[in-house]
Amino acid sequence: MRIAVVGVGLIGGSVGLAARERLDAEVVGFDPSPAALETALEVGAVDRVTPTAEAALDGAEVAFVAAPVGVLPDAVRTALAAAGDDCVVTDVGSTKRTVGDAIRDERFIGGHPLAGAASAGVENARAALFDGATWYLTPIATTRGTLYERLHRLLLALGARPRAIDAQTHDRLLATVSHLPHVLANVLVAQAARARTEAGRDEAVEPLPATGPSFRDITRVAGSNTAIWRDIYLANADALIGSIDDALDRLTAFRAALADADGEGIAAWNDAARDDRRRLLEGDLAGGEVSELRVSVPNRPGVVAEIALALGRAGINIVDMALHPAPDRSSGSIVLWIAGAEPAAQAEALVAGLGLPVSRA
Amino acid sequence: MRIAVVGVGLIGGSVGLAARERLDAEVVGFDPSPAALETALEVGAVDRVTPTAEAALDGAEVAFVAAPVGVLPDAVRTALAAAGDDCVVTDVGSTKRTVGDAIRDERFIGGHPLAGAASAGVENARAALFDGATWYLTPIATTRGTLYERLHRLLLALGARPRAIDAQTHDRLLATVSHLPHVLANVLVAQAARARTEAGRDEAVEPLPATGPSFRDITRVAGSNTAIWRDIYLANADALIGSIDDALDRLTAFRAALADADGEGIAAWNDAARDDRRRLLEGDLAGGEVSELRVSVPNRPGVVAEIALALGRAGINIVDMALHPAPDRSSGSIVLWIAGAEPAAQAEALVAGLGLPVSRA
Repeated sequence: MRIAVVGVGLIGGSVGLAARERLDAEVVGFDPSPAALETALEVGAVDRVTPTAEAALDGAEVAFVAAPVGVLPDAVRTALAAAGDDCVVTDVGSTKRTVGDAIRDERFIGGHPLAGAASAGVENARAALFDGATWYLTPIATTRGTLYERLHRLLLALGARPRAIDAQTHDRLLATVSHLPHVLANVLVAQAARARTEAGRDEAVEPLPATGPSFRDITRVAGSNTAIWRDIYLANADALIGSIDDALDRLTAFRAALADADGEGIAAWNDAARDDRRRLLEGDLAGGEVSELRVSVPNRPGVVAEIALALGRAGINIVDMALHPAPDRSSGSIVLWIAGAEPAAQAEALVAGLGLPVSRA
Repeated sequence: MRIAVVGVGLIGGSVGLAARERLDAEVVGFDPSPAALETALEVGAVDRVTPTAEAALDGAEVAFVAAPVGVLPDAVRTALAAAGDDCVVTDVGSTKRTVGDAIRDERFIGGHPLAGAASAGVENARAALFDGATWYLTPIATTRGTLYERLHRLLLALGARPRAIDAQTHDRLLATVSHLPHVLANVLVAQAARARTEAGRDEAVEPLPATGPSFRDITRVAGSNTAIWRDIYLANADALIGSIDDALDRLTAFRAALADADGEGIAAWNDAARDDRRRLLEGDLAGGEVSELRVSVPNRPGVVAEIALALGRAGINIVDMALHPAPDRSSGSIVLWIAGAEPAAQAEALVAGLGLPVSRA
């Protein structure tokens, strides 16, 4: 399998390393930075490099466009123009509506791996970066089923957990679990830097305590790469504003309870947070025996994406999938493996609800 | 040395373990919970237990009162009433003004170790809990110098970094670096729990991504022990309200920049956060050669605390100290060890500024 990686940084480089090590794939890389390409060759993230993005696409079956959110639509368009008819093109951007709205091509599927590291750059890339990480996929309405399946299985082979989600839900969810935490980290370090100066008298400065897990934990992401995060904030501005407004409301309500010395209210609020946290953690612990669902699918665009989205929406994890077109390609069947008896039963009902014949092994 | 521990939970139990292992001290424990006392004996956190708090103080040279913030003033008063004239009594509460304002006794020094663990209780106590941890001390105006020195050196022996600070500054600083982060963690899990439900259509629920370092980091402390944190929030309400108001202002300003799509403003704001974070981290990395300062001190109450506070305020770390009273006890000398040539020179100037004769070796 030949894989094109357009943009060999931390993510693109790690895709290359994992694909070469685990799939014995041929990885062809391009990056606007000659230094990045040189390092990519040195660390073994790519087999060879090309002088243009277009050239990297030549003969590729899968292409990862790992460009900053701000230039993604153009970069994806360039890749699609150079890609063959049977090549699936995906991206790794942190917001999904902008690129999803800009691209209408059945070979495109938006993507977003929830993986990263403290340090960017291909020199920090590693094959295990995606192990166990959620990798969101945002297929568009016309995404071709065979291509969706290929990408899904490739991501599984890279160690990730692919998960279909619609772009709107993705952006709203990420505003809460990623973008707002980054904003709050910035707010806290700014505040702490000021508190530190004010706390000292005269010219002196009160050092921050060397220990203090909550502050360390919360501010680890403060001041992350400005070029990347400015684009993310701007691309997801409306959802992030919604999250900020919600946070402002909650903070204001807690402030009022404090001002009223409302011990009972504060206790109830803290208990609720404990319960919320427990439920959120439990939500991560899906598992159990794997069931097999066989679905007969008509050969129409988007049907595989439709199934994947319906299951993703219901919180059902597709452990693996395989698509078998009928010889005349007018129809086919798709096999889905689902972990846990209850999720499998739920998946069966959802697929049946889409009007598709389904059976469970 | 005999040490009394009133309240053998995670902190009290760890003090006991460290004092027994590292100082060969005799540790006498009391706790209102018989089960906690039994466990404390089992894990070796205490040599013996007593049926009352008063009995634990008998013959003690140092007493740690590890009670919840809400009952601290009463618990400290009880300990002081039972303590001998030469016993230093300290506490480990997370806010320092309430107890500091309530107690007027030259044997009392407020304290707050910045150490903890995910799980409370003496069964999770360990001798190394305080290794390298800042341990704030809030001496009151009349704190006796010999007792301050004894506590300071004991904390060093337990592995901590004692650091004098006035109660007001402590509470303001902690509002920013600890209490507000806890509040924000609660806000975020509440918001995420709601986002998760809303993102799913119908009855379904969109699971939170299994990976996502910023959210995990920021919400680790959500819903911490309600009884403890309700008291902390209430005891530090005014400072915490100040921190919340500041956070509200900063969030609102960022929201406006987002709404205006002000890319330059967002970039500058993120760069500033990166610089703030770097400076905060650099502030932790004090070090260098240790210098010795010798100070002649008159035998008057509070002079040692005065020196410790002046140095603490300037961000100077006292690596160690030794107090040598003159035979007639009318005066004496104190030796301070300070890390780094520049901090040592600064410390010398600060001590001289207090009108005390000082020399640097």
